[in-house]
Amino acid sequence: MHPLLSHIRRQVPFSEADFDCFLKSAELVKVGIGHQLIHPGQQVQHQYFVLKGCLRTYLTDAEGKEHTLQFAVENWWVSDYIAYYKDQASLFEVECLEDCQLLKVPKSGLLTLFDALPGLERYFRKQLENAFTAFQTRILSNLHLSAEARYQAFVMLYPDIEQRVKNYHIASYLGITKESLSRLRKHRSQTEK
Amino acid sequence: MHPLLSHIRRQVPFSEADFDCFLKSAELVKVGIGHQLIHPGQQVQHQYFVLKGCLRTYLTDAEGKEHTLQFAVENWWVSDYIAYYKDQASLFEVECLEDCQLLKVPKSGLLTLFDALPGLERYFRKQLENAFTAFQTRILSNLHLSAEARYQAFVMLYPDIEQRVKNYHIASYLGITKESLSRLRKHRSQTEK
Repeated sequence: MHPLLSHIRRQVPFSEADFDCFLKSAELVKVGIGHQLIHPGQQVQHQYFVLKGCLRTYLTDAEGKEHTLQFAVENWWVSDYIAYYKDQASLFEVECLEDCQLLKVPKSGLLTLFDALPGLERYFRKQLENAFTAFQTRILSNLHLSAEARYQAFVMLYPDIEQRVKNYHIASYLGITKESLSRLRKHRSQTEK
Repeated sequence: MHPLLSHIRRQVPFSEADFDCFLKSAELVKVGIGHQLIHPGQQVQHQYFVLKGCLRTYLTDAEGKEHTLQFAVENWWVSDYIAYYKDQASLFEVECLEDCQLLKVPKSGLLTLFDALPGLERYFRKQLENAFTAFQTRILSNLHLSAEARYQAFVMLYPDIEQRVKNYHIASYLGITKESLSRLRKHRSQTEK
């Protein structure tokens, strides 16, 4: 079964015929490691479902420091959702950390399809609930959890990602230095022994 | 016209008959200043539309420091959305800063209504888009905007709220001290002269 149909069916009932109809509006894109899928200042009219590969969404602040907002691996959706929903220029960069195969879904096509396929609108409503609560949980964890607990939450959320991304990516996601990340890992491996 | 119907119609077409049907699932509640609408540890099965009054959602961290996530005034929705969507115990407190009149909408009733009233599901999908992008914008502004720019964004988002809430509420929303807030206000009033 197509991985996206499988993903949709985990949330809502959805027929193969409806999925074929949806798939006609999407485009398969293959981009190489290092490719900038979205860059700051760009208009964003698509969201992307990851079939293969790993991407990172980050913001560079005025001091040049990178803040990683999200990683996306297989079966995750990725975009700049502020730019996408609000028709604003993007503040983020979305970069490919590996060669990627993505399903590129245009906003205009999706809004048209919602009228014909209410199950699709429900799936995207539920995706939004997940994205909103995941993002809010992540921000809250910065306020009330220790760096160690945040690292554990990261490992739970992205179980197989540690070997796929650089240490400074993870450190910039957790809001800590690379040295602190090394200490947390050492402590974790000692605890597991 | 009912303020909620007016609010819905700003996003989607919606008939009076459908609104009456929706309204039957909701309950009008009146609560006094100081009332805790949601408290930490509680299950959350409702969201609330503010007809009158002002509320604040905040988290108290391990050091006892309060972090204000959101204010809600007339025509805003408020709940603990992590607890609501994920069926988790609440981490937040939602307190009434004034006497409030609220429309209390149960999750179970809403999910049933979505099947009969697709316009209602679309309205709540759009509400989620707004909530998600507003929250993400707010977090990003903490990363890349100065305290002054964040204060200006706050005044834009909540134009009439400054007289309704305490200074330490606003300071804990902006992530600054009360003294810094006073300096920002002084600077703003001097600039406007």
